[in-house]
Amino acid sequence: MDYRIEKDTMGEVNVPVDKYWGAQTQRSIQNFPIGAPASMPKEIIHAFGYLKKAAAITNAELGVLPKEKSKLIEMACDEVISGKLDSHFPLVVWQTGSGTQSNMNCNEVVANRCHTLEGKTLGEGQRTIHPNDDVNKSQSSNDTFPTAMHIAAYKKIVEKTIPQVETLRDTLAEKSKAMSNVVKIGRTHWMDATPITLGQEFSGYVAQLNYGLKSLKGSLTHLSELALGGTAVGTGLNTPKGYTERVAQVIASLTGLPFITAPNKFESLAAHDAIVESHGALKQLAVSLTKIANDIRLLASGPRSGIGELIIPSNEPGSSIMPGKVNPTQVEALTMVCARVMGNDTTISFAGANGHFELNVYKPVMIQAYLESATLLGDACQAFNDNCAIGIEPNIIRINEHLNNSLMLVTALNTHIGYDNAAKIAKKAHAENTTLKEAALALQLLTEEEFEKWVVPEKMIGSL
Amino acid sequence: MDYRIEKDTMGEVNVPVDKYWGAQTQRSIQNFPIGAPASMPKEIIHAFGYLKKAAAITNAELGVLPKEKSKLIEMACDEVISGKLDSHFPLVVWQTGSGTQSNMNCNEVVANRCHTLEGKTLGEGQRTIHPNDDVNKSQSSNDTFPTAMHIAAYKKIVEKTIPQVETLRDTLAEKSKAMSNVVKIGRTHWMDATPITLGQEFSGYVAQLNYGLKSLKGSLTHLSELALGGTAVGTGLNTPKGYTERVAQVIASLTGLPFITAPNKFESLAAHDAIVESHGALKQLAVSLTKIANDIRLLASGPRSGIGELIIPSNEPGSSIMPGKVNPTQVEALTMVCARVMGNDTTISFAGANGHFELNVYKPVMIQAYLESATLLGDACQAFNDNCAIGIEPNIIRINEHLNNSLMLVTALNTHIGYDNAAKIAKKAHAENTTLKEAALALQLLTEEEFEKWVVPEKMIGSL
Amino acid sequence: MDYRIEKDTMGEVNVPVDKYWGAQTQRSIQNFPIGAPASMPKEIIHAFGYLKKAAAITNAELGVLPKEKSKLIEMACDEVISGKLDSHFPLVVWQTGSGTQSNMNCNEVVANRCHTLEGKTLGEGQRTIHPNDDVNKSQSSNDTFPTAMHIAAYKKIVEKTIPQVETLRDTLAEKSKAMSNVVKIGRTHWMDATPITLGQEFSGYVAQLNYGLKSLKGSLTHLSELALGGTAVGTGLNTPKGYTERVAQVIASLTGLPFITAPNKFESLAAHDAIVESHGALKQLAVSLTKIANDIRLLASGPRSGIGELIIPSNEPGSSIMPGKVNPTQVEALTMVCARVMGNDTTISFAGANGHFELNVYKPVMIQAYLESATLLGDACQAFNDNCAIGIEPNIIRINEHLNNSLMLVTALNTHIGYDNAAKIAKKAHAENTTLKEAALALQLLTEEEFEKWVVPEKMIGSL
Amino acid sequence: MDYRIEKDTMGEVNVPVDKYWGAQTQRSIQNFPIGAPASMPKEIIHAFGYLKKAAAITNAELGVLPKEKSKLIEMACDEVISGKLDSHFPLVVWQTGSGTQSNMNCNEVVANRCHTLEGKTLGEGQRTIHPNDDVNKSQSSNDTFPTAMHIAAYKKIVEKTIPQVETLRDTLAEKSKAMSNVVKIGRTHWMDATPITLGQEFSGYVAQLNYGLKSLKGSLTHLSELALGGTAVGTGLNTPKGYTERVAQVIASLTGLPFITAPNKFESLAAHDAIVESHGALKQLAVSLTKIANDIRLLASGPRSGIGELIIPSNEPGSSIMPGKVNPTQVEALTMVCARVMGNDTTISFAGANGHFELNVYKPVMIQAYLESATLLGDACQAFNDNCAIGIEPNIIRINEHLNNSLMLVTALNTHIGYDNAAKIAKKAHAENTTLKEAALALQLLTEEEFEKWVVPEKMIGSL
Repeated sequence: MDYRIEKDTMGEVNVPVDKYWGAQTQRSIQNFPIGAPASMPKEIIHAFGYLKKAAAITNAELGVLPKEKSKLIEMACDEVISGKLDSHFPLVVWQTGSGTQSNMNCNEVVANRCHTLEGKTLGEGQRTIHPNDDVNKSQSSNDTFPTAMHIAAYKKIVEKTIPQVETLRDTLAEKSKAMSNVVKIGRTHWMDATPITLGQEFSGYVAQLNYGLKSLKGSLTHLSELALGGTAVGTGLNTPKGYTERVAQVIASLTGLPFITAPNKFESLAAHDAIVESHGALKQLAVSLTKIANDIRLLASGPRSGIGELIIPSNEPGSSIMPGKVNPTQVEALTMVCARVMGNDTTISFAGANGHFELNVYKPVMIQAYLESATLLGDACQAFNDNCAIGIEPNIIRINEHLNNSLMLVTALNTHIGYDNAAKIAKKAHAENTTLKEAALALQLLTEEEFEKWVVPEKMIGSL
Repeated sequence: MDYRIEKDTMGEVNVPVDKYWGAQTQRSIQNFPIGAPASMPKEIIHAFGYLKKAAAITNAELGVLPKEKSKLIEMACDEVISGKLDSHFPLVVWQTGSGTQSNMNCNEVVANRCHTLEGKTLGEGQRTIHPNDDVNKSQSSNDTFPTAMHIAAYKKIVEKTIPQVETLRDTLAEKSKAMSNVVKIGRTHWMDATPITLGQEFSGYVAQLNYGLKSLKGSLTHLSELALGGTAVGTGLNTPKGYTERVAQVIASLTGLPFITAPNKFESLAAHDAIVESHGALKQLAVSLTKIANDIRLLASGPRSGIGELIIPSNEPGSSIMPGKVNPTQVEALTMVCARVMGNDTTISFAGANGHFELNVYKPVMIQAYLESATLLGDACQAFNDNCAIGIEPNIIRINEHLNNSLMLVTALNTHIGYDNAAKIAKKAHAENTTLKEAALALQLLTEEEFEKWVVPEKMIGSL
Repeated sequence: MDYRIEKDTMGEVNVPVDKYWGAQTQRSIQNFPIGAPASMPKEIIHAFGYLKKAAAITNAELGVLPKEKSKLIEMACDEVISGKLDSHFPLVVWQTGSGTQSNMNCNEVVANRCHTLEGKTLGEGQRTIHPNDDVNKSQSSNDTFPTAMHIAAYKKIVEKTIPQVETLRDTLAEKSKAMSNVVKIGRTHWMDATPITLGQEFSGYVAQLNYGLKSLKGSLTHLSELALGGTAVGTGLNTPKGYTERVAQVIASLTGLPFITAPNKFESLAAHDAIVESHGALKQLAVSLTKIANDIRLLASGPRSGIGELIIPSNEPGSSIMPGKVNPTQVEALTMVCARVMGNDTTISFAGANGHFELNVYKPVMIQAYLESATLLGDACQAFNDNCAIGIEPNIIRINEHLNNSLMLVTALNTHIGYDNAAKIAKKAHAENTTLKEAALALQLLTEEEFEKWVVPEKMIGSL
Repeated sequence: MDYRIEKDTMGEVNVPVDKYWGAQTQRSIQNFPIGAPASMPKEIIHAFGYLKKAAAITNAELGVLPKEKSKLIEMACDEVISGKLDSHFPLVVWQTGSGTQSNMNCNEVVANRCHTLEGKTLGEGQRTIHPNDDVNKSQSSNDTFPTAMHIAAYKKIVEKTIPQVETLRDTLAEKSKAMSNVVKIGRTHWMDATPITLGQEFSGYVAQLNYGLKSLKGSLTHLSELALGGTAVGTGLNTPKGYTERVAQVIASLTGLPFITAPNKFESLAAHDAIVESHGALKQLAVSLTKIANDIRLLASGPRSGIGELIIPSNEPGSSIMPGKVNPTQVEALTMVCARVMGNDTTISFAGANGHFELNVYKPVMIQAYLESATLLGDACQAFNDNCAIGIEPNIIRINEHLNNSLMLVTALNTHIGYDNAAKIAKKAHAENTTLKEAALALQLLTEEEFEKWVVPEKMIGSL
């Protein structure tokens, strides 16, 4: 590889000749060879593009940065936002806990890209744009990184996670409606219980997702508050008057999302409770989705020796010789994602609790875990929707078999022949492994017509 | 001990002669000797009192229970609510996962107490009130226990946790105001940074608690929804028309809290996402309180070889020979509570995710962990408030020492003598372990008057 | 209540006249009204009895405490150990993080009990035994509390948890043997798979518990190391020569357990990785037990519309009208306990990670969570064993129904009639919902005799 | 992109023309677009290389696979092991929970690579090697994936994690030795305490890491047991006699690691307690490392207004104007990694607990989280060692300042002038903010010579 020499206050360092990053980024690569390279989420890089652009615009508006400089910076930032410069962001999550080095990575890339946008050669000639003095103007790592965290998290949630979960929610709601007349045996403690409809069961899933979506949407308010303008310790030292509110407005305008400046910048730098809160909602969804996915896996079990009341789509060859062996692979992917999300919640709580004084220094791991949860949960809901949920069908034969064999239906006879007689029927049927009707007729406690008239599961499903 | 004989469908069982419980409770005692006795939270017992009373009233209103029976049941329930009958609830958390046995415990105690309220002797004479047919009328364990969970959780939060956290929040807000002019050194990465006021630092704590309180209050909506009326599987089988809405109204009226009937009973029985959601908010508060308490512990460290910028009250003898050794005991109690709350969140997530079909069978452990968190967090905030926070005072001498010694103040000289000269001063002071002023004057870069005029920490704290 | 006056360096305080505790304990009661009273585990109190006795004996041996004083202290400690003085230990877990106040509680109770053992009246006359100078001699809270943690944890594990888990393990091993010829359908992904025996399934459970027991026993080595002798910061300041090793020997002798002095006292005070490690093993057991208990619950589901391959004992009335509805209540208690243990692991990890410098100040919450897990896990295994596992029986009719209906048996025909023909049979049977034999004969691909000879599930279970 | 057509039992599918994978892999790509592509850990791919090679060798030895086929498969597997074929493994973690699709991915890649090794063109001509019949011979996804998990985990731990942690442990041990005479103030509860040496403090860190390494090494036994030979449900159906033991020997020989066949295959497929157990040890190390790293960060805080007793290397430009502001960036990276590991433990426990019947279907997420923890923990220890620990130096000036100012030294006077007089000195010094010596001389309680002779911190550090 060819290198050029870049300098910082500690001296010279070799940087790959075709990369926009500078000395501080290069040092970070060398000092933090931890895990896979370039693990800092791309969503954070792009969010930095937005905030650096907004800062340049605001600085220019407020007269602390020449318009021409701002224009150049904006052009370079647009490329950062678009993902075009992703390969120039080589740093890992496991760096300084304030994300300082990723902030510097962005400053260096933007400054060097401005240099080449002016037609100059990297590493040669005089710089128009300085990474610190211009790109980082009115900023500090300490307020930019948390700002990037909120931009990335908010965007991810509204653009991906929420719509993807809603897609699944809508499918389950349609299934609930479509199967509203499918009466089946209910199960409590894994034991046969009184009847319920498949529609009712699925309505519970829809309700769960709606509560989770409400929690997630509720967390957006806190996420919409941006730290930018707090600079190093939250006091806003070295920012021009009016900067704080204005820069948030510009970010809102650039992203089309309702960002505002955080009312208390000390909280914004020293704590990341907005991430803790919002991830709590993602974890709630993971809890709900585990329940829902498990139910579907269990109801689809079999084909012969399980529950077998649902049929799910077959997406890949199961056993080549074994028809009907449709493994619930989408359920398995989704529940594995949920296990991951629950672990991420532990990580985020630990990290969130351990900030000290003016700065929480677990920022990168918090946002990495957050974005991972938001992405995986959304993607897994979408895949589960597309490849499983939309194809769910009731196995009517099996459902009726279970329903009609159930001893619990005897409760319908209480008001007609009395509790004691009803119990006699159930006991006889259980002991002799017969149907209730067979036992009832054998005991001569009622006629076949009466049995057919009184034991009607459809009348036992309530009106809720 | 003397015993009387009680019977159920499995036969006879000996029950202590002076206890109101019956055969099913006694069997549970014998079958579940797990951990300390009577560990089922008392708040759940009292909540059962409310719901059994409300059910009796509603049943009577709707004509399915004679008024006289209702009156008797109401009287006994009032005693349950008051805590007078606590010693008649001997069961543990580690029982049936639906809480069935605690529901039966309540049914048996209320029925037997009705018996003695009529002047009869326990175990003798004919019963007026039947535990199942009367006390449990229009109910099932499966809808009563989750109802008790929501009543107990809601009451605890609004009556204890929220006011206790608010008390601490208010004290911190007062401290923030009182110390708004105390300029001190800021710290990021545990390294000296630019100045901040103690008032600003504390305002961050207040903001954190306000966000946490908002989350906690936001979770009340879901908690206000009651499962009662869903009976065994959520369909409401065996409830009279109008019962569901009415019984929630009666509970609201009895408790003075805005309970309503849950819009989807299938979700209410099969999942406990309301508990997951609300405990997520308690966990968020635990994260915030850990940060806050840690800061206070660290700022009060010393007295000589720590930070020493805060003075906290001395509540117990520290070292008898060592004046000024005031251990931050309230901080330690509070942060231990927070560690417990974080663990409880793992328990609740695991339990909430693992319900199947029509019933989640982790109900007792979920509500136990929830109530423990709510109680401990509230109590610890109150104790921390009363015995520590209200007595916090700044150690002005120490604060000024740190502030005036700080090399970070040199940044104030940048605009006057240039970055390079300012850096020279800082480097000299650091190398020779002197003050900035000494170094500045030695370098003859400015006069003492200029130094005093330009290096003013009070001007470096921004206006945020 | 009547009070007497006790004094400490902060002044006078009222103490209930009949209690042995003194001023510092009383202050702690007042300063930490957090959660239920007296929540400090009794096992810790009793462990303090052992270590105070051992310290007195060793101090006397080494000539720094008069023999007569030692004798008195030993008598009082014996009462502490026996539990006779439990009501004199009113403190909560949520106190100083070093457990200082529980150490002082013990010092005060022992000193005052010595006073009454001499026939004197509490609060009157001159003390022979001083709580600090005599009872606490050669000790500090900082080394006594971790010593009590290890004694309590070790005793609990070897006397309760391990034997209780082993009891269950032995029962499962017997069941495995007894059911070694019960061939049944295997299940993977919740779908029917090739056959297995019930004995093989249960052998997997036994293997899991054996691994967990091995981990738990492996953690005893670290737990056997005692901090005593480290005093305030681990340097052993103020201990007589030879004290450290000797006091551990005396504790070993008193308890009959192989305690030794910790090789590094700095680690023993500043970290509690022995608790982290050992609880990790308890958590591993909780993971295993969840799997095992779930399997049993699922295999016993039904009676008609579930799996129904196992029959578990009926310990309490299920539905009075519904024979065969045996709720898996012991499974539910056990899995709730496991959820609790998993949460406790989060608590312990958080607490263990957050010690600083010479002292971890999360000691009480760590040992409380540890002992809770050890007790509940052991008790729940015992209850599950006694009330469920020992009564497990195979439901042969159901097992054979599932086995003989299974389409997976067709794989046995591959080598006889070729893969393609075998698949034809399976597809036909699945499509027409018939048995394999019916399909095979209808297709005239083999004779009934051949089918009976070749399709023998008993030959498909391997030899592993 | 150009495609070729591949077929499986569900029909045709387009595969990129230059990729070795086949139809089933391609379907998985399409069905599971969840998170970043190709997220299945490369270590698992390489482990599959080992086990497929070992199976081929064993199958050939036992006469169920022609030698020539085995030779071809071995050649292809060597390329898999070497990483040369990594780009042909495009699947994600979030697939079937048994890892079936990654097993098929390997079968397809090996078969197709054999095809090209024979000089044939992909997708053309007759196959010599069949992915199922040859490459997967005597195997099932259900026993191959857990085998790959153990191979990957064991290799990672012994080749990376353990040596990397040991490197740090050795450095800390050297520092402990080098600083064994540096007497400093001890700190408990964040308050000044009696003296200790830096060497003693660091010896505690070494002890912690040694305990953690012991736990981690202890977990290798369980990890060394391989599931291979259990096939679909653990019974070993369709394996030749002797295969099970032999294939484990071959893997041991190929890897140079002491793998053996698992004594109970039912456990090996249905549970992954070996992963739970071993990750518990990684989590214990994360707990220890958090403590250690925090201490170093705190001791290095300042430079003026913190503790400042350690000097750590400066690896990147801190504040350009602020000499001495060396942010503890390596500590921050390491503690973030530890937070991640703690979360991974929650994930692994949840996943490990939720297997059912003959197969745990959380395999991919468990091994992904495990390998992530093992890699990050090792790498972070190495980076922390290289860029921080080896450069740690005591700040003697600061250490002595704290030590000599400490009021705790007064305890050394107790035996000379009595407790009461000693306390008087300490109180005067605290009240007037002077040194002990100044106060002592002012009170005329002893001479300067006596003070110098008696108050010697070096004599207060014990002999432990």
